[in-house]
Amino acid sequence: MSAYRQLEERFERLAHLSGAAAVLQWDWAAIMPMGGAKARSRQLAELDVIRHEIITDTRLAGLLGEAESTRDALNPWQDANLTEMRHRWTHANALPADLVAALSTAASECELAWRSARASNDYPTFQKAFESLLSLVREKAAAKSAAVGLSNYDALIDSYDPGFTCTEIDVFFTDLAVFLPDFLEKVLDKQGALPAPVVPKGPFPLDKQRTLSRVLMRRLGFDFEHGRLDESHHPFCGGVSEDVRITTRYDEVNFTSSLMAVLHETGHAIYERGLPIEWYTQPVGEARSMSLHESQSLLMEMQICRSNEFFCFAAPLLRQAFGMADADVAFSPDNLHRLALRVEPGFIRVDADEVTYPFHIMLRYRLEKAMIKGDLRASDLPGAWNEGMLEFLGLTPETDRDGCLQDIHWAAGEIGYFPSYTLGALIAAQLFSSARAQLADIDNALTSGEFQDLIAWLGDKVHSQASRYSSHQLIERATGLPLATDAFKAHLGARYLA
Amino acid sequence: MSAYRQLEERFERLAHLSGAAAVLQWDWAAIMPMGGAKARSRQLAELDVIRHEIITDTRLAGLLGEAESTRDALNPWQDANLTEMRHRWTHANALPADLVAALSTAASECELAWRSARASNDYPTFQKAFESLLSLVREKAAAKSAAVGLSNYDALIDSYDPGFTCTEIDVFFTDLAVFLPDFLEKVLDKQGALPAPVVPKGPFPLDKQRTLSRVLMRRLGFDFEHGRLDESHHPFCGGVSEDVRITTRYDEVNFTSSLMAVLHETGHAIYERGLPIEWYTQPVGEARSMSLHESQSLLMEMQICRSNEFFCFAAPLLRQAFGMADADVAFSPDNLHRLALRVEPGFIRVDADEVTYPFHIMLRYRLEKAMIKGDLRASDLPGAWNEGMLEFLGLTPETDRDGCLQDIHWAAGEIGYFPSYTLGALIAAQLFSSARAQLADIDNALTSGEFQDLIAWLGDKVHSQASRYSSHQLIERATGLPLATDAFKAHLGARYLA
Repeated sequence: MSAYRQLEERFERLAHLSGAAAVLQWDWAAIMPMGGAKARSRQLAELDVIRHEIITDTRLAGLLGEAESTRDALNPWQDANLTEMRHRWTHANALPADLVAALSTAASECELAWRSARASNDYPTFQKAFESLLSLVREKAAAKSAAVGLSNYDALIDSYDPGFTCTEIDVFFTDLAVFLPDFLEKVLDKQGALPAPVVPKGPFPLDKQRTLSRVLMRRLGFDFEHGRLDESHHPFCGGVSEDVRITTRYDEVNFTSSLMAVLHETGHAIYERGLPIEWYTQPVGEARSMSLHESQSLLMEMQICRSNEFFCFAAPLLRQAFGMADADVAFSPDNLHRLALRVEPGFIRVDADEVTYPFHIMLRYRLEKAMIKGDLRASDLPGAWNEGMLEFLGLTPETDRDGCLQDIHWAAGEIGYFPSYTLGALIAAQLFSSARAQLADIDNALTSGEFQDLIAWLGDKVHSQASRYSSHQLIERATGLPLATDAFKAHLGARYLA
Repeated sequence: MSAYRQLEERFERLAHLSGAAAVLQWDWAAIMPMGGAKARSRQLAELDVIRHEIITDTRLAGLLGEAESTRDALNPWQDANLTEMRHRWTHANALPADLVAALSTAASECELAWRSARASNDYPTFQKAFESLLSLVREKAAAKSAAVGLSNYDALIDSYDPGFTCTEIDVFFTDLAVFLPDFLEKVLDKQGALPAPVVPKGPFPLDKQRTLSRVLMRRLGFDFEHGRLDESHHPFCGGVSEDVRITTRYDEVNFTSSLMAVLHETGHAIYERGLPIEWYTQPVGEARSMSLHESQSLLMEMQICRSNEFFCFAAPLLRQAFGMADADVAFSPDNLHRLALRVEPGFIRVDADEVTYPFHIMLRYRLEKAMIKGDLRASDLPGAWNEGMLEFLGLTPETDRDGCLQDIHWAAGEIGYFPSYTLGALIAAQLFSSARAQLADIDNALTSGEFQDLIAWLGDKVHSQASRYSSHQLIERATGLPLATDAFKAHLGARYLA
């Protein structure tokens, strides 16, 4: 058996173990009784250890070298697969086994500490667990830096979003930091000069929200033979490509935030479902990167489902779902659309509108870069957070719960991930702009709730390409241009100030 | 580190992997969308392979030998743990890796074939898949026989119910085969001479059944911080001790069969929850055997929850749950009790009453012994099944769906398991008889819905003992007598003919 084929077998084993872990993680977040947490964290740690053992097996280095020396025998997908294998191997082999185990345990403990600390707004409890975890993440960054030849923080980004580095991100974020403050002021002025949209009056029974969510998911192409919709504290998309599990959280008073979460996660799910079946279980068959993944959820939520066209289609379904009269002003397409585009600086990232969202990311990006560099200690995080919030958004949170304790990422050891959200927004805008240019009559299609042409375009340009190309190549092939902030800024301008 | 301690570490890894697999299996049976089956079966097969790799690691044999040669250094629990480790090692190392992989694949395929064959009553479709699987199970039996020094079929029983062999089971079953036919006739005569109980008229909304199930589970000691109740095609108890997951299936027309399933599975769950926390993750900390497990579910369902005392307690809760009047005759304790004790020979094992149930087991026991011996081929199974049903129960099923296709066990490669059900019934009767003798005022306690003394007695005698003793030792320590059919026969006599 060729070296390449032997590698495929080993990476297939890794894929099955990762799939098992993904379902167990979904279960934890969505339905596990809390008493199961300790056993589950050990199950997941054991799966981590085994995956680490497989990918650090000393024979793998030889197989990779041998396969790379006979690259000519590979077709382009196999060639790209081999590149992805090497990338994973390099990241995994950068870390000693005891660091992997220590990170897994510390992340589980810190996540538990975060849950209770957040509930009781108790930063010191979190700080204690986070200090240990941060120190291990810094070790990880240093080890990866040596292995991949990037700066420590870039080496972390490279696990989530290979190809992106601070050099490029700094250019994008500096550009946005110049553009957005002035833009935001204009949007708020314009918004303030108009009467506020009418907020629909609930209660909106949860069962009706659940049914409505499923109706819209089906319409957007979600296949319930290969997925589920459940509920969890934070909406997310998990599971495996054949069995994609998305979650939301319902609120009887306000149905829109849950519905938008469902549509957002549906974007993630459709990416997963659109990956090429013949490459399931291989690295090249997985979603390209976190920013590409986020681009698909944001394209669905922000570009499509907050458009006027979408609300023309969806308003009657919403009225029907909640038994509202056709004449109900709150449920007119225009009112729903204006509600969905409400811009308001706030403390909470996940509740932020698309105009202020980049500020939340720029803040986290600045702080996590400093933490990895060693310029910011865990004990100084709340102060640095509040300073940054004041600078970017003119706000000071009253509690850490609304401040630096709001997100799970750092508590789970996920540092280097946040930039992907804003990169995703840039990619989404650039992709959607190209799709509109290439697809005839797209606006009418969206108004009629016909999404299949757009989904097919994304399937062709993004989903079916999996990790065949780098993020940058994929974006340029799909849109004809290198990634830039132009489409995003144009989108915001057209939507909010036109 | 001592050899024994090194063994503990390895078996702890196995426990975490088994726990992961248990949750994934629960997910499959309870909530997985069908499109996820292929990916899931591969995840589970990979976990099987890894567990097999760990337990057949050649260094394990040396560690076991070394630990056994220094047994004196171990305390009694560690000593029992080492015995359990050796037992597992012997069973696992009896099988070559390719047989393990072939069994896993064949069992998945046969189970899928069984699902569709059963739905369409298509024995030939099942037969094809089952022939391959049976041949592999026979190989497994022969390999285990050589390793454990038991006959082929006894070697299979030894995985589920170590300590039990056909010699003893034959004595019990022969005894029951003499006792039961005459007894059944008398019960049917007595039952026929009385007016039939009133069947409660539905519909019984599923939500109300769900709530009622949870109320009774809590009352019996089920802790929802460490477990869930869900729904599946067949009720079962899965998950891990810290997170026990039981399922049932609801029927709007008839609430009793679902409720009894819930109570039955609650018995399994309370056993799991009562295992000693300091031995979780070690072989000695697991439930003793399949028959002991079944004894706990049957003790709960048959001995406790079909008693007159239980219905005195539960009838008002049932009336309240379904909004029935206090005077409703169908919901009187006496009527509910008589309904729960209805005896009627039928085709389906899982619907059978406790008097006719052993016949279903004796039939399967006879057939699976013959299949393992090579005296019965898959193609002759339907005929042999129908002959046996006629002999034992005087009935001939009209379809294989109501005959040899009704159970999943053989389709999943589980041969040697069925005797555990009737062994469990014998153990349950003997344990409950001792508990009644030892616990003052137990009948009044049950009538008041006070189960804690009984659960504590079971916790002390059975649950907390885990696998510290053999099944036979455990039963004799708890009841003062070796296992026999006496208590079971006395229970039936007192309940049905007194």
